[in-house]
Order: sequence, then C-alpha cells, then structure tokens
Amino acid sequence: MSTLVALGSAVDSAQVVGNMLGVFAFGVSGALLAVRRGFDVVGIAALAIATATGGGVIRDLIIGETPPSAFVNLRYVVAALLAAVLIFFWHPPTRVIRTPLYTADAFGLGIFCVTGTVTAFQHGLSAPSSAALGLVTAVGGGIIRDVLAGVTPSVLSDGELYAVPALLGSAATATLLYFGQYTYWTGGLAGAGAVGLRLLALWRHWHAPRARPHRRRNAE
Amino acid sequence: MSTLVALGSAVDSAQVVGNMLGVFAFGVSGALLAVRRGFDVVGIAALAIATATGGGVIRDLIIGETPPSAFVNLRYVVAALLAAVLIFFWHPPTRVIRTPLYTADAFGLGIFCVTGTVTAFQHGLSAPSSAALGLVTAVGGGIIRDVLAGVTPSVLSDGELYAVPALLGSAATATLLYFGQYTYWTGGLAGAGAVGLRLLALWRHWHAPRARPHRRRNAE
Amino acid sequence: MSTLVALGSAVDSAQVVGNMLGVFAFGVSGALLAVRRGFDVVGIAALAIATATGGGVIRDLIIGETPPSAFVNLRYVVAALLAAVLIFFWHPPTRVIRTPLYTADAFGLGIFCVTGTVTAFQHGLSAPSSAALGLVTAVGGGIIRDVLAGVTPSVLSDGELYAVPALLGSAATATLLYFGQYTYWTGGLAGAGAVGLRLLALWRHWHAPRARPHRRRNAE
Repeated sequence: MSTLVALGSAVDSAQVVGNMLGVFAFGVSGALLAVRRGFDVVGIAALAIATATGGGVIRDLIIGETPPSAFVNLRYVVAALLAAVLIFFWHPPTRVIRTPLYTADAFGLGIFCVTGTVTAFQHGLSAPSSAALGLVTAVGGGIIRDVLAGVTPSVLSDGELYAVPALLGSAATATLLYFGQYTYWTGGLAGAGAVGLRLLALWRHWHAPRARPHRRRNAE
Repeated sequence: MSTLVALGSAVDSAQVVGNMLGVFAFGVSGALLAVRRGFDVVGIAALAIATATGGGVIRDLIIGETPPSAFVNLRYVVAALLAAVLIFFWHPPTRVIRTPLYTADAFGLGIFCVTGTVTAFQHGLSAPSSAALGLVTAVGGGIIRDVLAGVTPSVLSDGELYAVPALLGSAATATLLYFGQYTYWTGGLAGAGAVGLRLLALWRHWHAPRARPHRRRNAE
Repeated sequence: MSTLVALGSAVDSAQVVGNMLGVFAFGVSGALLAVRRGFDVVGIAALAIATATGGGVIRDLIIGETPPSAFVNLRYVVAALLAAVLIFFWHPPTRVIRTPLYTADAFGLGIFCVTGTVTAFQHGLSAPSSAALGLVTAVGGGIIRDVLAGVTPSVLSDGELYAVPALLGSAATATLLYFGQYTYWTGGLAGAGAVGLRLLALWRHWHAPRARPHRRRNAE
C-alpha cells in the first residue's frame, strides 16, 4: 500500500462511488441473465455477485493486492445482492430481457474501464499496462458471467462493438493519468464516453469486420 | 506465515485430514463427470485434479498464499489421482452416475466450506470475509469442474439447494471461530451439518424459489 | 526477485525467445479458433491474446509474481496481436482449419511446458512442483481459449494425446534442472520432443484408453 500513487481524496471518493455503481450495474446484468436462463433465486444471487465482483477480483489478483477488496470490504457483495433482489422481484419478460441486460452491462463496462485503469496506475503500473488492466477489469466480470451461464462472452462475439469502447475508455484514462490531468470530471467524461459509445454501437448496430470466409474454393 | 492465527495443533491436524478427504471426494466427483462425458483416462485424471485442487488454489490465490498448497505439497494431486484411478476401474453405468457424483460432491462441499473458512480466518481475515472465502473454496472446485466439462455449474442451477448448505456451514464455522469455540468437534459438526443438509435437499428435492415468469402479458 | 535461481544469461535469453515463440504459436491457435467460430476482428484479437498470455498469467499468479509479465511487458500482447492480424488476413477455409490450429497449439504446448517449468524452478519451487506448474502453464492458455470459445478443452477430450507430451516435456525439463544439466540445447531438445510427440500423436491417432462403458447390465 505504501507504493500507492496519490491522486487526491476527491479521486479516491470518486473511485469508491464509481466502483459501487459499476458493481451494481454488473450485478443487474448478471441477475438478468440468470433470470433469462431460468435459474432460481440462489443462482440469480450467485451470478450477480460473480459478475459484479469478478472483474475487480481479477484486477486485484493481477496487481498483487490480496485479499481482493471484494473479500475485505463486503459492501460490494451487498450491492450485488441488492441488484439480485431487485431483479428477482422486478424484471421484464424473458423475451425482452436483452436490452436492459446489455444496458446495465454497458454501464458496468464503461465505469470499470476507468476505475480499473486508475487502480492499476495507483499501484505503480505504467500507463499502457494500466490501460490493459483497466480493459481486463471492464470485460472480466462479463466474461465470468457469460462463461458460467454457458453463453459465448460478449467480448468475443457480441455482434456490436464491445471491447472497443472499453479500450478507448481505458486508453483515455491512462493518457489523462500520465499527463496529470485525471480529475473527478475528466475521468467521469472518459467513463461516460465509453458507456455512450457502447450504447450507440448497440443502437446503431455497429459491427467490427469479420474475417473473409474463403468462399473461392466452394464457388463455381 | 507469521500472521497466522494459532488455533492449536489438533485443529491443524484436522485441517490436513479434512482437506485430504475433501480433495478425494471432489476428485471422485470430477472423475465421475469425466466418465459420464466419455473422456479418456487422461481427461478423467485432469478433471479429477482440477476439481479437487481448484477450490483450494482459488482460496490460496485470494489470501495471497503463493504458491498455493496444491503446488507445494503434491499429496493433494496424488489423492486426486487415486480418486481418478479408482473411478476409472470401478464406476457405475453412465445413466445412474448422477447419484454417486452428487454424493461425492456433497462431501467435498461440506468439508471445504469448513476448512476454507478456517484457513481464511487463520490468515487474518474477518469472520464475515472468512465465511465468504470458505463458501468460494467450497463451490470453486465444482464450478471449475462443470465449466471445463461444459455443464451449467451446480451453484447456479442445480435444482436442489447447493450453495445454501455451504453458506450455512461457512457461517457456522466463522461464528465458532469468532467466539473461540472452534474445535475438532464443533468444526466436524458444522461440516457434517453442511453435508447432511445438501444430501437431504437432494433426497427431498428441496428447491429455492424461481423468479416469477411474467405470464401476465401472454395470458388471455 | 532476489530468490531467483540463476541459470546463466544464455538460458535467460532462451526463455525470452521461447516465450515469444510460444505466445505467437498460441496466438495463432486462438485466432484460428476465433475464425472458425465466426468471431469478428475484435474477437479474433481477444481470443488470440487470451490464449497466448493466459498460461503465463496463471503461472505468474501461482508463483506470486505480480503483476504477471504479460501486463508488465506488453511485447507478449503485441506478439499475440501480430498473430491475430496475420490470421485475420490469411487463414485456411473453415473446414480445414483444424490441422493448422492443432499444429500451432502443439508448438505453444511444447514450448511452454519447458519455459514454464524453468520459470517455476527459478522461483524456488521443487523439481516436481516445477514440472506440475510447467504442465499448467502449457495447458492453461489452451483451456482458456477453449472455455471462452465454448469448446471442450483439448486437455480433457481431444481424441489424441495432449497432456501426456506436455507432462513428459515438463518432467524432462525438471529432471534436467534438478541435475544441473539444463542448457539452451537440452531444454530445446525437451521442447522439441514434446512438440514432436504431440504432432506424432495427432498424425498416428494415438489415443489414451477410455473407461469401460459398463455394457453388462444392458446386454442380453
């Protein structure tokens, strides 16, 4: 802890607030996927907690911060449980669950790519390494959620852009940190930009190109 | 290691015995699932080892005990291999493999929720954090087993109660530790209670409630 | 880092070269599987990076070397990205992708079982523990690749021998290290042997035995 880079108490408070919001958003996405898969209330709670805390646990293991904060400070588990309870009692019909699921996930993604990058930078990682770890933090919870639920992870095959908004948000945050311009506001802007870009990609169906399918040999 | 909370040598011996039994039980469950999936002898051994040691490796990574004990002390790998060899030569027909698989898993689950909580507490975690890590230790091996074998993890969607017995066992153990009442016997009772509750839930088909399926809009 | 076992600068250089080659080979295998699954360019890059760096990240977490080298030194990510770009533009038709995929994977497997064992030994693990960790390093990236892509991991159910060549390569490397005979050349031989054995098993369809299917009760 003595090697932490000080960024001021306003940034520290923003980290806590951001992480709680991100945890809640990912918790909602995990609970919604569990409802869609027909899991019972325990499964809904378990998938909400795993999704909400998974990215942060991976981040903390990678920077060597053990035990990970999700195990030290149980408020994150409580926030994820609140999300699970909320969704257990109040959720849309299964066939239209995709939109709220992806929207909640977009907020978790955009928030965690910023806070994950900041945490990595505070622990002394270089700006590029911090951006890489921010990206992993952002996509980690969703990967755990999708693998546990038996769904192909969004980061691999979502149709719309998923990793790109998170990467841009992480890179922007790392750049701000490197040049000493990271504040409550610029960080919030980076996160909002990542969330907005993901939602825009969903709304406008922006796809990344696929590999050429080699039809030549089959064509005649 | 200097921060270890001393609980007496009887508890330490019980930890070793308990962990060996839990490893063997989870190894049997992993090997049985591998047989059901038609894996070859290497796949049976690999799934037995991954299931048996997975929860403990996750536990050790989370508390920062590196390398994890499964890599330092290869007796756990040997116990898992013994389970794999046993099941390779002696196993029930595929269509009735579910009962022995779930029974072996119940023993691993109930034992690890106790020993995992104790290990976490000995490493200085608070009682609630220790219970959380005990739960993760108990369900971790089974999650790894099910994800590797392409099955939905029991903790998410098992039908019968799975995480609840482990959570109760972890919470009871953490309470005993907190009040200084954890002994060879009270710990054994907590583990036996968790195993028994899981087996009872399987036998009596105790289910957790599912989320309401929103039939209103479809009904007429 | 102060506990590192010195093996000479020639070995250290060989480690870097070997790890880069292994990362590139696993990156190619991840990218090829992503193409076969129809993922877009981001998914191809993500699966290439996860496959290429996954085994090493697991290895580093287990020996407590945080942050893992893949996050400190981004050259491994760059090598995996190069593999992804190469495969994105130049890849065989989907129906014949299996052979190049398995060949690339064999090179990653054979190289990483050697370099992973060496890294573990350098960090003070015993020879048997080093061999175990070398095996985990070798199969870890492929497991992550297959689980993310929704495929049963090769290590569990590949048909041909997969874990056995890696185990023999790890054990040979650990034996060489234990007796002080590990050099640039003997290590290269162990790796080449592991790669060759895996390719030979693929070519000659060497299978491990399956468990007896218990037909007695069904037969009459």
